[in-house]
Amino acid sequence: MAKRRSTKKRRLRKVGASPGTLVHIGAHKTDPIRILVFKYHPEGFTESEVATPEEACSLIEPGKTTWINVEGLHNVELVREFGTRLGLHPLTLEDILHTRQRPKLEEYEEYLYAVVRMLNWDGDLLSEQVSLILTPDLVITFQERQGDVFDPVRERIRTGGHGRIRRLGTDYLFYALVDIIVDNYFHILEGMGDQVEELSLRVLADPDSNQMREIQQMKARMVRLRRSVYPLRDVINRIEKANPKLMGPDTGIYLRDVYDHTIQVIESVETLRDSTSGLVDLYLSSVSNRMNEIMKVLTIIATIFIPLTFIAGIYGMNFENMPELKWPPGYFAALTLMLLIAAGMVYYFRRKGWL
Amino acid sequence: MAKRRSTKKRRLRKVGASPGTLVHIGAHKTDPIRILVFKYHPEGFTESEVATPEEACSLIEPGKTTWINVEGLHNVELVREFGTRLGLHPLTLEDILHTRQRPKLEEYEEYLYAVVRMLNWDGDLLSEQVSLILTPDLVITFQERQGDVFDPVRERIRTGGHGRIRRLGTDYLFYALVDIIVDNYFHILEGMGDQVEELSLRVLADPDSNQMREIQQMKARMVRLRRSVYPLRDVINRIEKANPKLMGPDTGIYLRDVYDHTIQVIESVETLRDSTSGLVDLYLSSVSNRMNEIMKVLTIIATIFIPLTFIAGIYGMNFENMPELKWPPGYFAALTLMLLIAAGMVYYFRRKGWL
Amino acid sequence: MAKRRSTKKRRLRKVGASPGTLVHIGAHKTDPIRILVFKYHPEGFTESEVATPEEACSLIEPGKTTWINVEGLHNVELVREFGTRLGLHPLTLEDILHTRQRPKLEEYEEYLYAVVRMLNWDGDLLSEQVSLILTPDLVITFQERQGDVFDPVRERIRTGGHGRIRRLGTDYLFYALVDIIVDNYFHILEGMGDQVEELSLRVLADPDSNQMREIQQMKARMVRLRRSVYPLRDVINRIEKANPKLMGPDTGIYLRDVYDHTIQVIESVETLRDSTSGLVDLYLSSVSNRMNEIMKVLTIIATIFIPLTFIAGIYGMNFENMPELKWPPGYFAALTLMLLIAAGMVYYFRRKGWL
Amino acid sequence: MAKRRSTKKRRLRKVGASPGTLVHIGAHKTDPIRILVFKYHPEGFTESEVATPEEACSLIEPGKTTWINVEGLHNVELVREFGTRLGLHPLTLEDILHTRQRPKLEEYEEYLYAVVRMLNWDGDLLSEQVSLILTPDLVITFQERQGDVFDPVRERIRTGGHGRIRRLGTDYLFYALVDIIVDNYFHILEGMGDQVEELSLRVLADPDSNQMREIQQMKARMVRLRRSVYPLRDVINRIEKANPKLMGPDTGIYLRDVYDHTIQVIESVETLRDSTSGLVDLYLSSVSNRMNEIMKVLTIIATIFIPLTFIAGIYGMNFENMPELKWPPGYFAALTLMLLIAAGMVYYFRRKGWL
Amino acid sequence: MAKRRSTKKRRLRKVGASPGTLVHIGAHKTDPIRILVFKYHPEGFTESEVATPEEACSLIEPGKTTWINVEGLHNVELVREFGTRLGLHPLTLEDILHTRQRPKLEEYEEYLYAVVRMLNWDGDLLSEQVSLILTPDLVITFQERQGDVFDPVRERIRTGGHGRIRRLGTDYLFYALVDIIVDNYFHILEGMGDQVEELSLRVLADPDSNQMREIQQMKARMVRLRRSVYPLRDVINRIEKANPKLMGPDTGIYLRDVYDHTIQVIESVETLRDSTSGLVDLYLSSVSNRMNEIMKVLTIIATIFIPLTFIAGIYGMNFENMPELKWPPGYFAALTLMLLIAAGMVYYFRRKGWL
Repeated sequence: MAKRRSTKKRRLRKVGASPGTLVHIGAHKTDPIRILVFKYHPEGFTESEVATPEEACSLIEPGKTTWINVEGLHNVELVREFGTRLGLHPLTLEDILHTRQRPKLEEYEEYLYAVVRMLNWDGDLLSEQVSLILTPDLVITFQERQGDVFDPVRERIRTGGHGRIRRLGTDYLFYALVDIIVDNYFHILEGMGDQVEELSLRVLADPDSNQMREIQQMKARMVRLRRSVYPLRDVINRIEKANPKLMGPDTGIYLRDVYDHTIQVIESVETLRDSTSGLVDLYLSSVSNRMNEIMKVLTIIATIFIPLTFIAGIYGMNFENMPELKWPPGYFAALTLMLLIAAGMVYYFRRKGWL
Repeated sequence: MAKRRSTKKRRLRKVGASPGTLVHIGAHKTDPIRILVFKYHPEGFTESEVATPEEACSLIEPGKTTWINVEGLHNVELVREFGTRLGLHPLTLEDILHTRQRPKLEEYEEYLYAVVRMLNWDGDLLSEQVSLILTPDLVITFQERQGDVFDPVRERIRTGGHGRIRRLGTDYLFYALVDIIVDNYFHILEGMGDQVEELSLRVLADPDSNQMREIQQMKARMVRLRRSVYPLRDVINRIEKANPKLMGPDTGIYLRDVYDHTIQVIESVETLRDSTSGLVDLYLSSVSNRMNEIMKVLTIIATIFIPLTFIAGIYGMNFENMPELKWPPGYFAALTLMLLIAAGMVYYFRRKGWL
Repeated sequence: MAKRRSTKKRRLRKVGASPGTLVHIGAHKTDPIRILVFKYHPEGFTESEVATPEEACSLIEPGKTTWINVEGLHNVELVREFGTRLGLHPLTLEDILHTRQRPKLEEYEEYLYAVVRMLNWDGDLLSEQVSLILTPDLVITFQERQGDVFDPVRERIRTGGHGRIRRLGTDYLFYALVDIIVDNYFHILEGMGDQVEELSLRVLADPDSNQMREIQQMKARMVRLRRSVYPLRDVINRIEKANPKLMGPDTGIYLRDVYDHTIQVIESVETLRDSTSGLVDLYLSSVSNRMNEIMKVLTIIATIFIPLTFIAGIYGMNFENMPELKWPPGYFAALTLMLLIAAGMVYYFRRKGWL
Repeated sequence: MAKRRSTKKRRLRKVGASPGTLVHIGAHKTDPIRILVFKYHPEGFTESEVATPEEACSLIEPGKTTWINVEGLHNVELVREFGTRLGLHPLTLEDILHTRQRPKLEEYEEYLYAVVRMLNWDGDLLSEQVSLILTPDLVITFQERQGDVFDPVRERIRTGGHGRIRRLGTDYLFYALVDIIVDNYFHILEGMGDQVEELSLRVLADPDSNQMREIQQMKARMVRLRRSVYPLRDVINRIEKANPKLMGPDTGIYLRDVYDHTIQVIESVETLRDSTSGLVDLYLSSVSNRMNEIMKVLTIIATIFIPLTFIAGIYGMNFENMPELKWPPGYFAALTLMLLIAAGMVYYFRRKGWL
Repeated sequence: MAKRRSTKKRRLRKVGASPGTLVHIGAHKTDPIRILVFKYHPEGFTESEVATPEEACSLIEPGKTTWINVEGLHNVELVREFGTRLGLHPLTLEDILHTRQRPKLEEYEEYLYAVVRMLNWDGDLLSEQVSLILTPDLVITFQERQGDVFDPVRERIRTGGHGRIRRLGTDYLFYALVDIIVDNYFHILEGMGDQVEELSLRVLADPDSNQMREIQQMKARMVRLRRSVYPLRDVINRIEKANPKLMGPDTGIYLRDVYDHTIQVIESVETLRDSTSGLVDLYLSSVSNRMNEIMKVLTIIATIFIPLTFIAGIYGMNFENMPELKWPPGYFAALTLMLLIAAGMVYYFRRKGWL
């Protein structure tokens, strides 16, 4: 909460600043910033951690594929230096630092800039902005914090030998990184699906008013998920049609594959949303069912005993002339009458299916 | 459930794998894999079961129509070999094996690749992926398990003589297979429609809280059905506009016919969805109606006896000076008064329509 | 129900049949089949009932407008013979016989084929498929059963003299037939509107749980109506843009008129749907209102008598030392107290507006 | 109601009539028909009431702007004569007389024909059809009854001197008439908005079941309003793109202004619809709240007195051996106990916030 | 309220006026009108407050960027004079003064005219119309009242030195002003979000019927917010494609940035709308939960005491022959029996989870 608040303040302080002014908007980290550089070609690869943008950019070599991965964005100067060295537009730098972007693709003459959202699930939905920049020789990615989502890609570069990733250039690497982020969404969807399932069981077993709030939060989460995923469809569509200098035709077919996955993710999100909406109905019906059950008990107890109590009341009257009172088996007759009435009631309720 | 879980795990393990890596994602079967080959031309046909892709592919003969039907996908090597022999793209092979695809059409230079979902209904909705590949001389289909949906097509080939299927080539066969899958949806829709009908009767007769859950599951089933059917519209549309080398103009008019059927299926799905949504209303109204009925009984019993009991209470008081008590017919007068009040009440309820 | 079931079976038996196989799917009739032929030109007209397609087709004469109207479809051979004589595509014949089509237009080189649905209302919605085929010299219509909807057109041909229908050719006749079917929908809409109105009054007066089911059925009926009407918009749109050899430019403006009517029908259907949806709200509110009223009576009776009974209970206690009991006017004082309490309660309820 | 019924009958009688047959469909009036002719140019204007179409048409003068306004449509002959003299298409005449059209624009070679709906509000929504025909020298308008909505335009012509309306030609007049009709919608919206507001207050104060019906009627009214307004957007859009011979480019910018107003009207209608839908929620919550309040009173009275009455019942038992009864202050002790229990209950309810 | 009423009247009086007649529609202010003029180029700037349009326009200088900001619109003459001096179309002037416009862009040959809505939040949503006019040398803005939203832009001009705003021309200034208005929406969204959050907590804690009304008002507010924001998307889109003479290509990329922000605002509005709709569910569930709780207490008290009271009633009967009454420990046995029954009930309720 405290974190969210500080983000808000930053956002507000930003209002009115010159567009393009570089301020980092996002969760401040004291984590060290890490810059990893991968350089590879079909015959080999090098992998190194460097300290400065200068060092990182000096490793770029035409004809080889270089991937610079920056983890941590709170050093504005560092981002600015990358911008200067790689000729990025000020608005690109601003978007990298301002981590509340929706997924989008910006095409510049010299590079493609994509923003996507990487999601994490630990009972709540955590969202991180990943910026990817594609130039003919380089892919540079900016993450908000250290993470291991890209590890499988690294592993494939290391072990790929003459595999596809090493043969194909930067555009394939760019695709592979987007692909792994999208694939990762399936984890999130499973986590959320399990949560919906678990809540639906709890709602059915014992509805209480906080569950309604949980459902609302779940819905809000769905909306956030949707907002991370929906624009992606358009982004990938536009990557496909991007400058052929940057995005070769061979990668097109792979992009269509990610596109299909994105559609699948979107459909799953819609399904989840439907289930979550269904939870409201389930909750309301569960509550009214419970009420019903309580009412039934009340009705049965009351309707059985009210007439009996009335009979007892009659024979509790103090009239001097009440012949039954003097009749010796009167008491037992009265008890028997009461029993018969009770039995009749129970029979009636059974027949009605209320018992 | 166990099966679904294992599928999940597979899916997860797949995340991060190189796109195009061949792993079978789907329900594992220990069923033997079957490869059926049909070869026909207007004058005759041969039908054989073969053991290997090599054998199957050796039967392909230009000028004749060959249909290879592979049932069972858990032998990855087998699929790969088909891929090599027929020149399929790695992503096609991946899609064949990864059986959670949504229906789609991929156009390659040398072949058309369609994914559709075959549905089965046995109280629940079972979904199986069918991959169809069309080349000028060959249709090859991959099913997840053995099934008899294609039997009528086989029968028509066998008995067709100079009939349409034997005269027209692979594109017509391709169409006929898609057509039979779509026609099959009508069975599913009927099964689901009957289930909705049956549930609506149960809801009306005796609403209980598990029905609400059943309704939710039904809705989820509708969503899955929709997701199998909706993209099909687009798939068939695009088949029509496919490379004329593969899809001749004569088949176009038949495709429009399947297209119309698909629209009909979609409309029926929508109708079913509406009915299912209506079930929620029906359920809630049924519950509240029942509650109403119970309340009415309670009210009537209580409102009749409460005043009577009060009168009995009055004459049960122990005041020394209560003239009525000493009046000889007092008791009978009191009883008569109670009777009159009860009769008045009953009359009032009748007039109100509560009894 | 029996009829619907038999239709279902037919549908199922049809699955897997070769597309284009002629089987009649629809309600079987033992009614005799009737073939009516109208031939007219501005100067005159002939009208005859014939027995065979051969006879009917022999009457066609270039330069004159011929209208063949076939009532009853269960003679498959008859339809096939028309098909052969007029050069209809096998799929057209199949669609004529398979009477579950949605409205559509098929353009062939030599003719236009339109399917529309004719509706009847007798408390329930009856739907009949009408197939219309337009060639340069001929309009041929197929109805499922004998009916009088086309009578006004017949009357206009008979009495038209040099009127528009006699002057303009087959395309105008084609339009006039579609027009009369659309105009007929207004009857249906009125019937359904009256039913909705009548049900809404019943719901308000005395809600019971079967009404909910009626509302659901009404909704289902709306959906069927919609499905008959919506595609018509597209059909008429495409008739307008059809081959000018078949559809002259003079008829275009009339088609726009039918188009406007179709839009009006669609809007009325939407309005009806809204009203029907509103019935659910009305029903639920009516039920809860009734419940409310019942609860009010219970509350008032109970809350008035419970304290009174308590007072009676107090003076019914058997303590030896209860001074009030020995006070001579004690009984009357107690009764007065009870009366005052009851009056106070009634006053309170009045003020609250509950009485 | 009687009026609506007669209209219905007319509509039905019309079914089957030759399209283009002139029958007046609408509310019959015995009001005299009035024909007003305005003729003006920048330097002057004449204004006259004429008796016949012949007279009216004889006043048309090239180079001057003539506006013929016909109030009352039940004289079919009169409309037909205008049609003949001005060369109107039979369908145009039919649409003028058949006053259930939705707003539309028909472009003919020689003239533009627009149908719009003029609305009135007097607690209910009254709708009247206005037909406008634009030729190069003439605007002719047909209203169903006498009205004063066009008065401001008349006033501007009279007093306009060298003002815009007198300078610009028939197209500007056409625009001005449409504009005044659209502006008039804002009145209607206000009336309906006030009604919604007033109903929402009544619902909150004292929900009763007739209000639900009122809400439904309001919704139906919204739908009718929408149907009058929505198509107008398209109409105005198409006027803008009409034949430049009829609609000069100078008027385009004014049309965009009406267009903006139409959008504003549509948005207001949507807002009103939302509010009306909100009324259902408000009603249901208001009812359940009231129920809640009643239940609370019942619960409190019952739960306080039930235990007390039980205690009184105990000491009303007739056991011989009940020591308390013989204890002299027993009665007062019992009363004190009851008081304490009652006080405890009240305290508990207070703490729960139920009192 | 009084203010709104007077606005309404003005609107009405306007109906029928010649389009383009200048009348100020909006909240009348007695605030003095302020005209601020900024003139700047990369090397310097001047800032002055002037009294008349004449004075303001005399400061315009080709090659330098001039920004005239007019605060207060109730002096119609002043606006008219600006119109005359700057060559604005009468409809532009009318739109500036008529402050109920929806956001729009009008392209004239010589200038661009944009209307946007500036929002303020102080527990309710206040909306003000801002008109922006862009010519090659000048940006002129009209605000309804004095405000400080543009202050950051002023500050940037003052302190910008050779910064972007001073280097780039009028189009960038135009963009910067729109940008700051959009950025300002985020404040509004936060205010409204907090309000929704706060209400949701209140609803959960203690639902009462006025909250339902608050929710409705909140919804209405959302609708107004939407109507201010949605059209903006289109406006900005069209600014981008405007006359390149007015809007240089360098500003395009910045406009895409505002566009992205607008999308973000729209998405946030949708999220808020969803949350507000969720409040209705939350409210209803909260009410029914509370009812449930009350019912539970009633049921438990009643079902425990009703049988006990019945037993007491039995032993209060006056039969002469009741053996238990004479049994010395009878009273204590009866009390024990009652205790056991009560304990059994409590145990039963515990097990059911009702206690």
